[in-house]
Amino acid sequence: MKNSKLVIGLMSGTSLDGVDAALVEISGFGSQAIVNFKHFTSNPFPDEIRKILLKVSSGEPVSSGIISNLNVLLGQIFSQAVLKLCSECHLTVNQIDLIGSHGQTIFHQSEPRKLWGHTVASSLQIGEAAILVEQTGVTVVSDFRPRDLAAGGTGAPLIPYVDFVLFRDPILGRVLLNLGGIANLTILPPKCQSNQIRAFDTGPGNMLIDDLTRHFSQGEKQFDAQGQQASSGKIIVPVLENLLSDPFFKKKPPKSAGREQFGQCYTKRILAMAELAQEKDIICTATELTVRTIADAIFTNSDNTFELNQLIVSGGGVHNTYLIQRLKNLLPHLEIMTTDDFKIPSDAKEAIGFAILANETFEINANNVPSATGATHPVVLGKISYGQNYRKLRGFN
Amino acid sequence: MKNSKLVIGLMSGTSLDGVDAALVEISGFGSQAIVNFKHFTSNPFPDEIRKILLKVSSGEPVSSGIISNLNVLLGQIFSQAVLKLCSECHLTVNQIDLIGSHGQTIFHQSEPRKLWGHTVASSLQIGEAAILVEQTGVTVVSDFRPRDLAAGGTGAPLIPYVDFVLFRDPILGRVLLNLGGIANLTILPPKCQSNQIRAFDTGPGNMLIDDLTRHFSQGEKQFDAQGQQASSGKIIVPVLENLLSDPFFKKKPPKSAGREQFGQCYTKRILAMAELAQEKDIICTATELTVRTIADAIFTNSDNTFELNQLIVSGGGVHNTYLIQRLKNLLPHLEIMTTDDFKIPSDAKEAIGFAILANETFEINANNVPSATGATHPVVLGKISYGQNYRKLRGFN
Repeated sequence: MKNSKLVIGLMSGTSLDGVDAALVEISGFGSQAIVNFKHFTSNPFPDEIRKILLKVSSGEPVSSGIISNLNVLLGQIFSQAVLKLCSECHLTVNQIDLIGSHGQTIFHQSEPRKLWGHTVASSLQIGEAAILVEQTGVTVVSDFRPRDLAAGGTGAPLIPYVDFVLFRDPILGRVLLNLGGIANLTILPPKCQSNQIRAFDTGPGNMLIDDLTRHFSQGEKQFDAQGQQASSGKIIVPVLENLLSDPFFKKKPPKSAGREQFGQCYTKRILAMAELAQEKDIICTATELTVRTIADAIFTNSDNTFELNQLIVSGGGVHNTYLIQRLKNLLPHLEIMTTDDFKIPSDAKEAIGFAILANETFEINANNVPSATGATHPVVLGKISYGQNYRKLRGFN
Repeated sequence: MKNSKLVIGLMSGTSLDGVDAALVEISGFGSQAIVNFKHFTSNPFPDEIRKILLKVSSGEPVSSGIISNLNVLLGQIFSQAVLKLCSECHLTVNQIDLIGSHGQTIFHQSEPRKLWGHTVASSLQIGEAAILVEQTGVTVVSDFRPRDLAAGGTGAPLIPYVDFVLFRDPILGRVLLNLGGIANLTILPPKCQSNQIRAFDTGPGNMLIDDLTRHFSQGEKQFDAQGQQASSGKIIVPVLENLLSDPFFKKKPPKSAGREQFGQCYTKRILAMAELAQEKDIICTATELTVRTIADAIFTNSDNTFELNQLIVSGGGVHNTYLIQRLKNLLPHLEIMTTDDFKIPSDAKEAIGFAILANETFEINANNVPSATGATHPVVLGKISYGQNYRKLRGFN
């Protein structure tokens, strides 16, 4: 068996932008894994594919044939992404050892519901792995989420295990903070085992700040660049206190947040509460809500059994200088860094993640995080489709 | 590693009756496999599940959520079938080594079509393997057909490989004949390798005889019991000659037939052609068409490089004594037997088949038959989901 593997991760998110592909070199697995990021490439979907995917994933009724054909068609698009990535890296595809493909989520319902006399929660990712195997020859791991759901979990988040592989340190305690629309944390005590990972959504990340900025600028600005608005404003204390009293922030993990909670209705609520206030003060207050709920979550989920030393930030919010400064102020004991400081580009992290998860699956190592998903036990995620390289990869004759 | 495996095969057909489960003991694989049939059980679908499956597979538009939830729900029903089979055999589920699950086909389009700028053929089976793994703990192979389609095949038939494993003989040349609605053959020269298998549909099996019987009895009789009608009738030669001139019968394999070709429109055509004839003569002629096309196909696909010795029949047509007698008359050099003579119950054959195909996949042995499906090359079908027993099964530490 080879000492290290070249693994490609494929991710196409719910934003339906396209498929991201990342190449990493991995040796070992679990807490012993060493991961070197090599290359990342983004492949936008053609418009007509994005449209039909939007239709299907928004729940519009379609025939089973549409879903079946889309499954194969996305398999073809994913294969093209693999071949493009290889060509950009001056590799031939037969130098690749393994592919981890998340697939395109067209449905996700993590709360079990009664259905024809059965209790069902489900998540459906499409992008046929058999097409990837045929067009690349490489062994593929696909379909990660259903296994966690089958074990009673919500099938998400899966990235905390990736954080564990990439950032667990023998000496330092680390917190990973992803500042997307929603903010989420992965807390990694020093020398932690996978069952000591804590990971959950803290609440709004950039979502609220972005929505307010768009509202005040009549859609001209998409986000508060460098936090300029926020930094020139003042916190409206009664509004902040009111928002902080939301029971979600006190809830113990596992917990997840979404647009249904902190989206436009939430923005409207805040605008109503702060009717006479200045725009910059409202944005400042929203920024403070993000910062405070993150800082509080870090405090609440730390205990005196371990020390935390670093906060490693990724996602669009990294560029909000004011927000990051406020985090520094509230968390003076933490060194604030970004995933880029560890040579993991923020954009590439999820695609890298599915390369890492595929490697764990291949090594038959449980790779969900039950404390984050609510699963009743650890499981090996995904399904394996044998490539032409499978025997060699396993070290079989 | 164990010398033999206990493998369960699960099959739910397009008739939407329910899920069939068969238990076999297998040692070895490929031409060296030894398969012992142990038990078979049929599990009808609840009415409401059959109804929704019928809706989905007939192409009625539904939301992606319905398909996603049905995928999980069928996973639960398949798991119940496994547990029931084990209990009927007085086995605990952790004595089972492997499960092969065909899944429920909700779409199958083997002819490639242009779709949003891509050329797509696809087949979609549902019945989530992750649920089977969670509820049984056993390693599962699922999703067999897409890999053959990805290799340019039609994703069907898959049973010829099973015929090869079960009936290939070092000395005898054998023909497997399945007399379902459509008749299909698998020709196994003595000592053949998997690339020497010939398998294809010959044309109507019972479909035409059954349709005519239903027509003449105003739906009272479903089939010509023991071929009584046919045996009392005479062949209408011009009608038979006309039917035999259909180019399908001359077409070289791979070829497949279906209800769209030999269904009710075909029946109507024959009724029009034989307007003034007696009912029993028309049924006799239809029976002769089935028999002649089978016999002709066996002649056309034999050559003097090997001898054929036995014709092994399965499917409902086994009970049509007259039809079997006519086969004997036309193929006097063949000993006519049934799969039951080999302790393979005809009803259980498909479910047994997916146990055998799963065993081949686990052993990383190609298990499609390119000459039958039209695939450009042999492939290992299916996807593996690891059960708790996977390491032990592989002989890993």
